[in-house]
Amino acid sequence: MKRIDGGVTAPKGFRASGVAAGVKPGSTKNDCALVASDFPATVAGVFTKNVMKAPPIVWDAEVCKKGTARAVFTNSGNANACTGERGYADAKATAERVAHGLRIDTDEVCVCSTGVIGVPLPMDRINKGVDGCLGALSSTGSDDAARAIMTTDTVPKALAIEIPLDEGSIRLGAIAKGSGMIAPNMATMICIITTDAAIKAGPLKSLLHEAVNTSFNQICVDNDMSTSDIVVCLANGCSGAAHLTPGTDNYARFAEAFKALCVEMAQWLVRDGEGATKFVEIAVEGAHNDDDAKTIARTIAQSQLCKTAFFGQDPNWGRFACAAGYSGVTFEPDAVSIWLNDIQLMQDGAAAPYKEADAAAAMKEREFRIRVSVGRGSGSAVFWTSDLSHDYVSINADYRS
Amino acid sequence: MKRIDGGVTAPKGFRASGVAAGVKPGSTKNDCALVASDFPATVAGVFTKNVMKAPPIVWDAEVCKKGTARAVFTNSGNANACTGERGYADAKATAERVAHGLRIDTDEVCVCSTGVIGVPLPMDRINKGVDGCLGALSSTGSDDAARAIMTTDTVPKALAIEIPLDEGSIRLGAIAKGSGMIAPNMATMICIITTDAAIKAGPLKSLLHEAVNTSFNQICVDNDMSTSDIVVCLANGCSGAAHLTPGTDNYARFAEAFKALCVEMAQWLVRDGEGATKFVEIAVEGAHNDDDAKTIARTIAQSQLCKTAFFGQDPNWGRFACAAGYSGVTFEPDAVSIWLNDIQLMQDGAAAPYKEADAAAAMKEREFRIRVSVGRGSGSAVFWTSDLSHDYVSINADYRS
Repeated sequence: MKRIDGGVTAPKGFRASGVAAGVKPGSTKNDCALVASDFPATVAGVFTKNVMKAPPIVWDAEVCKKGTARAVFTNSGNANACTGERGYADAKATAERVAHGLRIDTDEVCVCSTGVIGVPLPMDRINKGVDGCLGALSSTGSDDAARAIMTTDTVPKALAIEIPLDEGSIRLGAIAKGSGMIAPNMATMICIITTDAAIKAGPLKSLLHEAVNTSFNQICVDNDMSTSDIVVCLANGCSGAAHLTPGTDNYARFAEAFKALCVEMAQWLVRDGEGATKFVEIAVEGAHNDDDAKTIARTIAQSQLCKTAFFGQDPNWGRFACAAGYSGVTFEPDAVSIWLNDIQLMQDGAAAPYKEADAAAAMKEREFRIRVSVGRGSGSAVFWTSDLSHDYVSINADYRS
Repeated sequence: MKRIDGGVTAPKGFRASGVAAGVKPGSTKNDCALVASDFPATVAGVFTKNVMKAPPIVWDAEVCKKGTARAVFTNSGNANACTGERGYADAKATAERVAHGLRIDTDEVCVCSTGVIGVPLPMDRINKGVDGCLGALSSTGSDDAARAIMTTDTVPKALAIEIPLDEGSIRLGAIAKGSGMIAPNMATMICIITTDAAIKAGPLKSLLHEAVNTSFNQICVDNDMSTSDIVVCLANGCSGAAHLTPGTDNYARFAEAFKALCVEMAQWLVRDGEGATKFVEIAVEGAHNDDDAKTIARTIAQSQLCKTAFFGQDPNWGRFACAAGYSGVTFEPDAVSIWLNDIQLMQDGAAAPYKEADAAAAMKEREFRIRVSVGRGSGSAVFWTSDLSHDYVSINADYRS
């Protein structure tokens, strides 16, 4: 497994593009992106669980159910959510225009929209964006596409890796956006994954769900889950390597790389979280089972008081214990211990004899780890979260104006 | 029902005091409070559901189970939470000292501690506080007590009302503190309620639970539930009015006043929420049942994105709809309508034709109302919340330092 350049266009047979079509009001930044496979590809997607699903999510779920696709078009600057029947018609019209340009079927095109909710898409500009993207498609277009899907992200996010097989090799690439509205049960985000592996829809879907569960479902910036979340993967088989079948060595290598890619992307979203000045790993162990551990970790990761303590660089372990205590999971208070990196702050339900200066120094770092043990069993889980800063408030108080 | 002065000492037979004993480090502010009944009183309490219950809460639950008590001692500046076995011993020792001074039994004394978690109580100062409070008890001491229980509150909170009965009248008084860590399932707070009504422990307990459920359980500042939450009520019968029995007119008047007092106190906690610049009522209707409505209302009230929009005075109804959508309650997106005061922002799942200037003006006010209808049935609920401001972050990032 080797890191390579090229993002979503690193795998063979993929092209991408990103253009500025004026969808981001008053901006000359890229706001439309297209990722396309030169050949039919297996597709799988994971979608937001929000009841107020955006129309593109409804469309994409239909495409993914079918199991094959060729392209993903994304616009930023304007979500297509809470837009009623018009929203679905706009999503479909966008797919049609892309399909027409690529000479493929409409139901081979996924569409994503991200930005302010409740405003219908400016279809004249979206059409301009589609046409621009079609003309600009290139095997080096990943960076343009990664920039075009950004909203409040401060950096474009792209990764690619090469996985050696017994014979030959396969490649994985990804671009993602997300930064606010990142919550568990899928971060609020868009991630487009490409691979030139040959894999059937069933195994790809299972693998994607597993990978999302241990990556994008274990991160938190705020606690809001958006209407437009999606992780979608296209696998076009262009590597020439044999079909990947679960149970084989090659499949195991691919699955491991796939999950590692998702974890790295997920952590990147937290690192670039809105206003984030800290990247904090919350590790919980000793729970009755893994689900309980995840619930405790998530509750600490989401707590406003823990997140402001991270921002304030304050090793206020009472807040971490308190959040664990209201997570809904049962444990004995006297069995709780808490560490900050290797410094034990709490021991068996009360203060441990640590040096305040050591703890303060650890929290001055940009990254640290809170480990909580609740002494009930062998269940464990990890969550990644950011702090809650003044900039988070500024970014979200001023988002529309 | 008439508002009167006097707080917890307005009802007959109650005295109170508040003194500065140096428990708040480096401060000359009041930090110890005592509320005492001259005669044995019926007692009822509602406590935090946090697993990491503070030792005083464990002690008070035992007192309340017994059904009678005479005094409530509270210190601010230092919680007695995550303090292990020593914490329980300290709570009991405090009750003993109060009981000794008042010549009553130790198990007639409730104790409360609020402040930073994880630091053992400075018992020398607590003892000094107990002695000072005992000496200062007075029938006009409510304000001193109200000030002594404050932590990040900006104003002391006290209320009293008189309820005319068929013959004579009874009085209710209360003091409360709370401002950060205010979350549903009881706000993170302390509220001490006194009354000179005569009422048995069973009916008092039922009434207190009902009242808390429609007041302190319907508010939110952040989403954290503390280890030290308590609402406790002493009823000493000194009014001379007959025993209140459920099913009678007199009981109904008392119950109505009791609930109104709790609602007003709860709303006051939100108005004085940490860094709050807004007081927002979230009203949900048309849910399948009241519980579903409450879940939706709570999710909107807790959403960081909704709360930063309140702070930013941004009528970003897409965020309100989005939060409703991830509440876990099922409804049809196309049936959702949202109003800001009387301005309809969303109609049947999409934007309503409102004037942006009208909506912006409404959100510039200090108080406004978000009403959400989800078109499923007749379930309704109300929640009160504050905004998420820069000051909230400052207050909680700097709390210990």
